[in-house]
Amino acid sequence: MTTTSDQLDVIASAAATAAPAWRVSSAADRAGWLRALADALDAASDELVEIADRETRLGAGRLRGEVGRTTGQLRLFAAVVEESSYLELTVDDADAAAVPPRPELRRMLTGVGPVAVFSASNFPFAFSVCGGDTASALAAGNPVIVKAHSGHPELSRRTAEIAAAALEAAGAPAGSLALVEGREAGNALVRHPVIQAAGFTGSLSGGRALFDLAVSRPDPIPFYGELGSINPVVITPAAVAARGRQLAEGLAASFTLGVGQFCTKPGVVFIPRGTAFEEAVAAAVTGIAGGPLLTERITEAFPAGVEELTADPSVTVIAHGAETAEGARPVVLATDATAVAERADTLLEECFGPVTLLIRYDGDEDLHQALRAVEGCLTATLHSEPGDDVAATLALLQDRAGRVLFAGWPTGVAVTWSQHHGGPWPATTSLHTSVGATAIRRFLRPIVFQDAPQHLLPRVLRDDALATLPHRRNGALTLP
Amino acid sequence: MTTTSDQLDVIASAAATAAPAWRVSSAADRAGWLRALADALDAASDELVEIADRETRLGAGRLRGEVGRTTGQLRLFAAVVEESSYLELTVDDADAAAVPPRPELRRMLTGVGPVAVFSASNFPFAFSVCGGDTASALAAGNPVIVKAHSGHPELSRRTAEIAAAALEAAGAPAGSLALVEGREAGNALVRHPVIQAAGFTGSLSGGRALFDLAVSRPDPIPFYGELGSINPVVITPAAVAARGRQLAEGLAASFTLGVGQFCTKPGVVFIPRGTAFEEAVAAAVTGIAGGPLLTERITEAFPAGVEELTADPSVTVIAHGAETAEGARPVVLATDATAVAERADTLLEECFGPVTLLIRYDGDEDLHQALRAVEGCLTATLHSEPGDDVAATLALLQDRAGRVLFAGWPTGVAVTWSQHHGGPWPATTSLHTSVGATAIRRFLRPIVFQDAPQHLLPRVLRDDALATLPHRRNGALTLP
Repeated sequence: MTTTSDQLDVIASAAATAAPAWRVSSAADRAGWLRALADALDAASDELVEIADRETRLGAGRLRGEVGRTTGQLRLFAAVVEESSYLELTVDDADAAAVPPRPELRRMLTGVGPVAVFSASNFPFAFSVCGGDTASALAAGNPVIVKAHSGHPELSRRTAEIAAAALEAAGAPAGSLALVEGREAGNALVRHPVIQAAGFTGSLSGGRALFDLAVSRPDPIPFYGELGSINPVVITPAAVAARGRQLAEGLAASFTLGVGQFCTKPGVVFIPRGTAFEEAVAAAVTGIAGGPLLTERITEAFPAGVEELTADPSVTVIAHGAETAEGARPVVLATDATAVAERADTLLEECFGPVTLLIRYDGDEDLHQALRAVEGCLTATLHSEPGDDVAATLALLQDRAGRVLFAGWPTGVAVTWSQHHGGPWPATTSLHTSVGATAIRRFLRPIVFQDAPQHLLPRVLRDDALATLPHRRNGALTLP
Repeated sequence: MTTTSDQLDVIASAAATAAPAWRVSSAADRAGWLRALADALDAASDELVEIADRETRLGAGRLRGEVGRTTGQLRLFAAVVEESSYLELTVDDADAAAVPPRPELRRMLTGVGPVAVFSASNFPFAFSVCGGDTASALAAGNPVIVKAHSGHPELSRRTAEIAAAALEAAGAPAGSLALVEGREAGNALVRHPVIQAAGFTGSLSGGRALFDLAVSRPDPIPFYGELGSINPVVITPAAVAARGRQLAEGLAASFTLGVGQFCTKPGVVFIPRGTAFEEAVAAAVTGIAGGPLLTERITEAFPAGVEELTADPSVTVIAHGAETAEGARPVVLATDATAVAERADTLLEECFGPVTLLIRYDGDEDLHQALRAVEGCLTATLHSEPGDDVAATLALLQDRAGRVLFAGWPTGVAVTWSQHHGGPWPATTSLHTSVGATAIRRFLRPIVFQDAPQHLLPRVLRDDALATLPHRRNGALTLP
C-alpha cells in the first residue's frame, strides 16, 4: 500500500487542524493522552508482538521487552510534561530605570506544529510508530504523521490504528497521529508545507537523502536524523590483564545482540597487540548463533559488508559464531591500527549485522593515530583500570561520541532524564538527542510575550501558574 | 583585503588548537575572559565609535549606546556561564533493580568546537565582531572566526585586534578569535572542516546561500541565520480611538529609527479603515528626517523596493518625512487588506529602510485573511484595549512570530535572560534565539558519561561540584 499524494494532503490537513489544540493543551490533558496511548499499547501487546515477530523475526521475548520500553517511554514523557521544566519558563520584569528602559518579557517553549517521524527497521516499537520521536513530538504538543517502515507494514498499520483510537478516546483531537506508507509518500511528507520538523532513525544514505529534502525546501525545516555509528571500544592492556575473559564475553554478547542490528553495536574494538584477548573472544563467540536479519536489504548487505572488510589485506577472520540455520552467522575480524589509520574509509565503515572488527594497537601513539580517523559516533567505550593514564585517549573519544561508557557495553540505551543518543556527524544531524527526556526540545520553539496583559498570556506564563512551576525570574531559577 | 585560502587554513588551524582549552575551561576562567573582552572594548570605545561613525554614519550617540549594549551582552554571558544552568547537568543514579538494570548516567552540554560568525551591516558592534553570536559562542566554550562585514572593514579589523589581545592577556589560548574578510573567504569559512556551527545576521538571500553551503557539506553543520522579517503590527479600532495619536507617533519613531535599518522595524501595520490614523501618522512623520543608508547596496535597494510597492495599483503614498539632504527620506504607504491577501508576494516583502506600509482592514475577517498571508517574523505587535476580543487575531500572530508585543514597538530588543530573537522561517533558520541568554544553546552539544569513575568525569559532573551547581538528579531539579 502506498499513500497517494491526495491521501497525504488529507492526512496533513487533519494534522494542521489538530495542531492548535495540541499546542494549547494543558499538561494534565497532554500527559493523560500519552498515558492513554501507553495503556492501549500495553493492552494490545499480545496481538502486536505476534504481528511484529512474524514481520521482523526478532523473537517474542525481545519484542515484548520492546513494547515495555516503548510504553515506559510514553509514560516518561507524560512525567516530563507534568514536571514542566521543559517549557523553560523565563520572566524578566520591566525595569524603567534601565538604559534603555526594559519591558516585561515572558518566554516559554511551544510546539512547532505537525511533525514527520520516519520509523526504523530494527526497533519495530521503540523507534517506530509510537517510538521515541513520536512520544517526544506529542509531548511537545504536536500532531505526528509517521512514515511506516517497509519492514513491518502490518504492525505499523495496526499500531497506528490502536494509537489513533486511544488518543481520540482520551479526548485528543482527530488527526493527532496518522500513518503514510511508501518511499514516495515519505519524500513528499518531509517536503509537505504542513510539516514543521522531522525525526528519523535509519541508514546514513537514507537519512542524508531525507535531510537534503528537508533543508532544500523553500522553507527549510529541522531534520533530526540518527544515521549510524561504529561505536568504538578501547581496551587497555591492564584491563585485558585484569578481566580479559569477562570483557571478551561481554563483547561477544553485545555485538551479536539483536543479530548485530543495533545502532549502538560495538563495531570496532581497539585491543593491545599480543595478548590472549583474541582467543578469548573466539571462545566466547563460538557458542552464539546468529539468525535471520530484518529485511532483504540488510540480508544482502551483511555478507557484502563483511566481504569488503576481509578484502583488505590486513584483515583476518578470527572466529565465527555457531552454525546458523538461517540468516547471518556471527563473525569476528581483526586488523591493525596502522591499517585503520591508512584506510579508514573502508575499515571504519559501519556494517549492520553480527560482525565486529578487533583492531590491534601497539602503545598509545598507535592507538591515537587510528582513533583520529574515527568519525562521529553515538557511543565510545573505554575499558581501563584505575592505574591507567587514559586522559589523552578519553579526550579523543569525547570529541567523537555522544555517550562515553566506562563499564558495560553500548547496546543498552536506558530511557531516562539524562540519556543522550546522538553524536557528531554522521552519528546524528543535530545537537539534540533522540532518546531521553531532552528529546522533547527538538520539537519546540521559543516564543516571548512583551508587556502582555495577564489574561492574554498562555496560562503557564501567568503569575498564578508560575508560582506552581519551575521558572526563572530576573535571572534566578526558582522551584515551586 | 581578502583572506586567502591559505590564510584561512592557518586561522582555522589555530582555532582548532584553541578549542580543547576553551571546552574544558572553568566557569571562572571563561567568565573572566568574557569580562576582559568587555572591559577592553569599553576602554577603546572612543576610538571604535569614531571609526564606526566614519564607516556606517549611524551617529556617535547611537554607536556609543551600541558599544554599551555589546559589552553588556558579554557581561550577561559571563553571568550565564557562572550561573551554570546552561550546562543542563543531569544525573541518573544506577538502578540495579530496574528491568533491564540501569547504569549511572551523567549528562552535560559541552562546546561544539570552532564557530563561524557572519557580521551584520546594521549593528557594527552588537551583531558584528564581538556581538551576540560571538559572545554566545565564546560563552559556550568555543573559539570564533568572524567574517567581517564589508560595510565596516576598518572597524572589524580594529575590534578583532583589541578582542584577540584582550583575550590573550586574560589567559585565553591563542587563536580564540580571528577575522576573515571577503565573500569568498566567508563561503570557504562555512565549508571549512574545522568549523562546527555558524551564526549569521543579514539578508534572506545572503543567509540562504550560506545556509545551503552549510547543509550541503559532506558533514552538515548547524547554521543559525536571522534573515529578515516584516514585523506586522495590528491596531484595533478601540486602540485607535483611545490613543491613536500616541500610536501614530510611536510608529513614526520606530520605523525611522536607525534610518529604518533594524530587522525588527515595523514594516506593515494593520489599521482599521476609516479612522483619522493615517492623518495622524502623516503628521507624526513630517518632521522626521531620514539619512544616509549603511551600504551602497542598501542605498540602491531602498528606492527600488519602495517603487516596487507603489507600482501595485492598490498602494498610495500617504506621507513623507522631512526633506533629507543625503540618503533616504522616510515614506509612509497605504494599501488594503484584500490586496495583501491577493498579492502577498510583493506587498509583504521586506524593504530595508525608512518605509512602512499601512494596511486598511474592514473587520476581523478581512484582517485575518491578510494575516494568514504573513510568513514567519521576528516580532508581531498587537495594540488593543481591554474590551477587545483579540483571541483569534492573537492566535494568528503567535503562529507567525517569535516575540509578541502588547505595548511599545518592536525595534528595541532587550538583552536579557528571557529574550527571544527568532521566529518561523524566513525570520530564522532554527528553533533557537540569537539574542538573550539562551542563545548559548546553539553552540553546545550534549555528552553523557556512563558508569564513569569520578576522577575521569569533567569537573562539573563530579559529586562535589554538583552540590554547588543547579542540576537534575533522578528527575528532580535541585538548586545549590
